[in-house]
Amino acid sequence: MGKVLIAQGGGPTVVINQSMVGAVLAARSYSQVDKVYGALHGVDGIVNENFVDLTDVPASHLEDIAATPASALGSTRSKPDADFCERIFASCEKHDITTFFYVGGNDSSDTVRIVAEEAERRGYPLRCVHIPKTIDNDLMVNDHTPGFGSAARFVASAFAGVNQDNRALKGVYIAVIMGRHAGFLTAAAALARQNPGDGPHLIYVPERVFDRAKFLADIKAMHDKHGRAMVAVSEGIHDETGTPMVVQLAGNAEYDAHGNVQLSGTGALGDQLVQLVKGELGIKRVRSDTFGYLQRSFLGCASDTDQKEAREVGAFAAKTGIEDQLSGSITIHRVGEYAVEYRVTDLLEIAAKTKHMPDHFINEEGNDVTEAFVEYCRPLIGTDMPRSVNLQAPRVDA
Amino acid sequence: MGKVLIAQGGGPTVVINQSMVGAVLAARSYSQVDKVYGALHGVDGIVNENFVDLTDVPASHLEDIAATPASALGSTRSKPDADFCERIFASCEKHDITTFFYVGGNDSSDTVRIVAEEAERRGYPLRCVHIPKTIDNDLMVNDHTPGFGSAARFVASAFAGVNQDNRALKGVYIAVIMGRHAGFLTAAAALARQNPGDGPHLIYVPERVFDRAKFLADIKAMHDKHGRAMVAVSEGIHDETGTPMVVQLAGNAEYDAHGNVQLSGTGALGDQLVQLVKGELGIKRVRSDTFGYLQRSFLGCASDTDQKEAREVGAFAAKTGIEDQLSGSITIHRVGEYAVEYRVTDLLEIAAKTKHMPDHFINEEGNDVTEAFVEYCRPLIGTDMPRSVNLQAPRVDA
Repeated sequence: MGKVLIAQGGGPTVVINQSMVGAVLAARSYSQVDKVYGALHGVDGIVNENFVDLTDVPASHLEDIAATPASALGSTRSKPDADFCERIFASCEKHDITTFFYVGGNDSSDTVRIVAEEAERRGYPLRCVHIPKTIDNDLMVNDHTPGFGSAARFVASAFAGVNQDNRALKGVYIAVIMGRHAGFLTAAAALARQNPGDGPHLIYVPERVFDRAKFLADIKAMHDKHGRAMVAVSEGIHDETGTPMVVQLAGNAEYDAHGNVQLSGTGALGDQLVQLVKGELGIKRVRSDTFGYLQRSFLGCASDTDQKEAREVGAFAAKTGIEDQLSGSITIHRVGEYAVEYRVTDLLEIAAKTKHMPDHFINEEGNDVTEAFVEYCRPLIGTDMPRSVNLQAPRVDA
Repeated sequence: MGKVLIAQGGGPTVVINQSMVGAVLAARSYSQVDKVYGALHGVDGIVNENFVDLTDVPASHLEDIAATPASALGSTRSKPDADFCERIFASCEKHDITTFFYVGGNDSSDTVRIVAEEAERRGYPLRCVHIPKTIDNDLMVNDHTPGFGSAARFVASAFAGVNQDNRALKGVYIAVIMGRHAGFLTAAAALARQNPGDGPHLIYVPERVFDRAKFLADIKAMHDKHGRAMVAVSEGIHDETGTPMVVQLAGNAEYDAHGNVQLSGTGALGDQLVQLVKGELGIKRVRSDTFGYLQRSFLGCASDTDQKEAREVGAFAAKTGIEDQLSGSITIHRVGEYAVEYRVTDLLEIAAKTKHMPDHFINEEGNDVTEAFVEYCRPLIGTDMPRSVNLQAPRVDA
């Protein structure tokens, strides 16, 4: 008999509870599992012994939780060092935990790795399994990560709607999208295109150096062509020295607006780019939105594919840790058009590493994605993306 | 036999095409209607004789358009003066238009009023019908306006999701919501509350003077109580002199960020309020989002109630102008819990006027809405609002 402990870390997603519930329900199905605990607020809850007992929570309630965005157990931004990981281990040992699941991104997988090594070193039989999640889609080995598909669907839905708005009232529109180092989520704006001429017309990801002059020339060209221009930029765009544009543009007295490097939860970059375009191109109607926290939490905008996979990844983690008695990181692999399978990958291959967009997903000019990216991303945003249709009607002679 | 002309004006909504399609399909069903024209980009399209012929566009295509956000015929921000209205009238006369439908807000209804008076004065038989739309919900006489319910659903869905995100990673969260003079849409954030303690914990509308010191004290109290605080503010909040806070806060050198009075399409106000809270209360994690254009255009977040009513308002306008041979503004009236009926109201009662939130919708302290507002708003956001559920599980003894 053993106890299972599960926790959620890092930025929440719309489907992170699917993974938690998938792991809990699967864990409860094993006769060798005595108790299923949840730690509140990630690793902080483990070291503080702040646990809830999920063993007998009705499955119907867990199903409601699974469909609710963000981390029901609470999350944390703590990045445990070796000492902190030792305290995690000590708490697990004290509570007779034999299987530890941590749902999170690359930082969380590094925590799992250190705790697993500590247990190994001490000869304590603790299986440690990392369950992937991140809207940034930046975990190594994985074809994609739970949470990304739903966030991508939000970005695509937002752009598809604003595209119609911008067709009705023309101008330049710039949206700032999450993703400090990886451009996948920004790139997902391309999935909004359903009709010829639909925006976004330009996409800038952090995998390419952001060139202010090129950006302005690109917008001018699109505005000349379409009478409007819709632009998706990643919050992490930076110059050739790696300095984020939000800092670089703030350094210019003309755009001296905010003066901090916090990228999320501020509209600074969007406002700076608006000022830049207005000032340099003399276009009158220039607007920006920063999609912000809505991207990772909006109620009612989940990809059904993402939900199912997040659930299955959790269940697969339970099998891995409890039945197969393995530690590792669960990874998603695409094995057909479209099908996936789940594998156990060595934590060393995932922990504290970042996957970037491959070159063949970004166009030559560095201002858009390729069709290969669109094909890659399309199944991830779900099977029932709403349509956006442009009116086709004959002109009347004046 | 006569020709019908329809146009769409002002800021788009998610259901403005429902009204257009409702009017077009109903108009086509009358034997006395010869042609149904659409003007491109509102009144600009009328004076430029920029028309499309909607008479034979397949109904199935129109149904796709109805389900697509924003103004399929294009919109305009032009506010016609008397001279411009005369040109509108002249274009209608030239093209033998006998019924003119204009879907828009209070400015658009004023245009309809002037054109109707011009036709009357000249003895030309032109029926002019204003079809209401605005996410601001600020048209006189109407219980509510098409477009508001879907935008309110967006705001409620966003807050319900971010509420869970903020429970997982605690801090102060401030969302800036559209509505320069009327606070209905900001107030709709209250519909996000599904569980005890759910945010928003504070709501500030432009119907009340915004007091910086009170705002800070309110946030401190909520943060002390909940360990977090979620705040909804209207973009139009202003001090006792009527100066918008985005201007007032920018006047302070410390927050000198933007320096313009444009309220939408900028993250300035949110960023200023974040700096204010951080600086004055010393709370570390303070974030803001500006919901921006997504509120009025997001693909896939329409209220079914709003969609139906927007469609019916369009059809009722066709009956009013074509069958009943009347000019006027179509208005929505609540006649049960929950049912509505449509009436024809004198354009003078609607044109260029703004409805504000009534006192009984705002709490005594001016920092929240009342239960009366929640009851008023609930049916408008649709019948199938997704649930947001908080985990209930027993604590484990440490």
